[in-house]
Amino acid sequence: MKKMNVGLLGIGTVGGGLYELLKSNITEIQRKASADIRIIAVADKDISRAKEVVGNAIEITDDAFQLVTNPEIDVVIELIGGTTIAKDLVIKAIEHKKHVVTANKALLALFGNELFALAKKNNVILAFEASVAGGIPILKSIKEGLAGNKIEWVAGIINGTTNFILTEMREKGVTFTQALSQAQSLGYAEADPSFDVEGIDAAHKLTILAALSFGIPMSFKDVYVEGIKALEQKDIQYAEELGYRIKLLGIAKKRDKGIELRVHPTLIPEDRLIANVNGAMNAVVVKGNMVGSTLFYGAGAGALPTASAVVADLIDISRATNVPANGFNEKQIEALPIYSINDAISGYYLRIKVSDKPGVLAKITKLFGDKKISIDAMLQKETKENKSEADIVILSRLALEKDINTVIHSIESLSATIGKVIKIRLEELSK
Amino acid sequence: MKKMNVGLLGIGTVGGGLYELLKSNITEIQRKASADIRIIAVADKDISRAKEVVGNAIEITDDAFQLVTNPEIDVVIELIGGTTIAKDLVIKAIEHKKHVVTANKALLALFGNELFALAKKNNVILAFEASVAGGIPILKSIKEGLAGNKIEWVAGIINGTTNFILTEMREKGVTFTQALSQAQSLGYAEADPSFDVEGIDAAHKLTILAALSFGIPMSFKDVYVEGIKALEQKDIQYAEELGYRIKLLGIAKKRDKGIELRVHPTLIPEDRLIANVNGAMNAVVVKGNMVGSTLFYGAGAGALPTASAVVADLIDISRATNVPANGFNEKQIEALPIYSINDAISGYYLRIKVSDKPGVLAKITKLFGDKKISIDAMLQKETKENKSEADIVILSRLALEKDINTVIHSIESLSATIGKVIKIRLEELSK
Repeated sequence: MKKMNVGLLGIGTVGGGLYELLKSNITEIQRKASADIRIIAVADKDISRAKEVVGNAIEITDDAFQLVTNPEIDVVIELIGGTTIAKDLVIKAIEHKKHVVTANKALLALFGNELFALAKKNNVILAFEASVAGGIPILKSIKEGLAGNKIEWVAGIINGTTNFILTEMREKGVTFTQALSQAQSLGYAEADPSFDVEGIDAAHKLTILAALSFGIPMSFKDVYVEGIKALEQKDIQYAEELGYRIKLLGIAKKRDKGIELRVHPTLIPEDRLIANVNGAMNAVVVKGNMVGSTLFYGAGAGALPTASAVVADLIDISRATNVPANGFNEKQIEALPIYSINDAISGYYLRIKVSDKPGVLAKITKLFGDKKISIDAMLQKETKENKSEADIVILSRLALEKDINTVIHSIESLSATIGKVIKIRLEELSK
Repeated sequence: MKKMNVGLLGIGTVGGGLYELLKSNITEIQRKASADIRIIAVADKDISRAKEVVGNAIEITDDAFQLVTNPEIDVVIELIGGTTIAKDLVIKAIEHKKHVVTANKALLALFGNELFALAKKNNVILAFEASVAGGIPILKSIKEGLAGNKIEWVAGIINGTTNFILTEMREKGVTFTQALSQAQSLGYAEADPSFDVEGIDAAHKLTILAALSFGIPMSFKDVYVEGIKALEQKDIQYAEELGYRIKLLGIAKKRDKGIELRVHPTLIPEDRLIANVNGAMNAVVVKGNMVGSTLFYGAGAGALPTASAVVADLIDISRATNVPANGFNEKQIEALPIYSINDAISGYYLRIKVSDKPGVLAKITKLFGDKKISIDAMLQKETKENKSEADIVILSRLALEKDINTVIHSIESLSATIGKVIKIRLEELSK
């Protein structure tokens, strides 16, 4: 069996997991792969840590550029992260005709277009299954398993940290801040959690999902992103009373004239499977025009699940797969317009605090009628803080974001309305 | 772009769906495939029906053997079904160096070993994503996406008819017979439903899943199969009270000395995602030693979902994929022993009808103690039929089937016990 020599860039958490996986499962992997896969060199700034993981059997260097130009190496695995040095290294590796495997979603979301073209030009494979939803083979499923479909939409829980926080808020009745602390103490959230809780990480992954689903270029800068920091416990409870769960979804939807790309907290009917994905787990629903709704569920992060995806890519490379990087033939990538959030269509949950005067509800519902937006459900609750105030919760049917914003503006101008209206989008998805 | 000429054997429901899919999605498929995929010939006994579907543009013949030897044809799609003529045609096509795509689970479960070897010898691809769980790309996920893992177990709802019946029984409180009629009137069950309700169809699919998960030969004859005909409404209710749902699962589990292969009604904790897969939908949970639990959900049957999988195989072939037919290299297939059901391990739900005498429960629980089987939960209910009788329901922890059978035999010998003990297996699976 021919040899496949692998160089590893970065042996932190995921790199260590990868090393462990290859050691534990090497016999099983050899039963499946078409080449003898072996790591022959590791580059890491911290040489002593690297030595602790791999011992003396493997060449260790702190010169990553030397590794990516090493003529012995067939495949480079990039697990450094970030978009500066990692980018330079990936480019250099490709230019030196190495196949590259990476888990770096930011790199792909921001520079995937150039990197795909460069890989194509150099006739090497750029593989990145680990970049979205960790161990779930969702990218392969879209690029290959569902390739016969026109994908209509993709919606996913693609950030485990925020899903853990939302699960804690719902199950334990705690605030966002309390749930975040819990996530941090359990290692599910970083000391600086902003990448996760502000939705940036999910937006990187959504960018990749959309490119592969619709054959569009990576369009990160056009993704509408809204995190979960503003979510209040009472919204989770009201949603629950109305039969919904709130999840941070990445949504990519094809419409007549282009694509909607958005990451935001979303109400989902509780009987949808994805509404019941809890803790740090991930799940992606793909709606194909022929297959209908399919759902893919599993661990979205963690050293071993991520390593599982990296090794799947290595085995693919050993089998000499010939799938275009984003699933569509290079010349078939279409730069479809991305809708602005103002032109997006969804249902809406609105929470309006009002002073408890007669006729308020009639005035509010008239504003919906004026914009021809149907109301699907309504809930009125005394607020705990003040008996003369009430929360009115309204679920609207599908509407243009700019129309609902007009309604909200008018509601906020009513004399009975107190403060700002809370708006959370709602997606029915499908069973 | 090079041409890929396809011959289609059988243009019934799925064949018609395939034709429709290729017509609707051809532009999207051309964006993704590495060859120009086109059906150039159709063989069907019913030429006039075939003509209604494809018109005059395509050659139609009732001589399937002429089609599979046609030198113009690169790929043969077999959608005839069964294991007689379909088998001869697939063999003939392979011998004539055609790639073959099939949805025929029975054919693979019974003759896959010979067919894989023949395809390998003739250097053609035998592709069969559509054979298990319809549109869900579960086989690709196991063979490729999760290839870095040692698969520990696979458990799936892989027969939509029975899942529809079980869902009706739970949601509407109807009997098996009533639910079956409903399934038949909606077209979810055949006039002769035995293949589905007796678990044979699920056993065919489980055979394929196990071969791909563990690198074993197709072992259909060793699968333990138990259908859902004997399930009573009260068992579904009791299970529900204890926090479980009953599903017909196909389970393939690796143990020290071999593999468990079994299809039977199974209690699953209600908080597992797969316990909430309802109606005619399918789902498969794959437990890998590195990735943990992953779940794949979608339509398990129907013309268009099945056609979606067939087209994915066609696109794979156009991309010249090089994945071994069962995911493991040919010489790495190991004929591991398959455990007899007597040596299988699971939890158990037992329902025992007793006359309401003092001391009965003590006698029954002592029998569990004697065999060192722990009891996890218990429920005692007056039966509706007779106030002097009671149903005792016991959930056991893990035990060998032969040990629980000994306990059951002893319980049935007690003077207070009325009739036979009902036994349903229970699997915790994992979150």
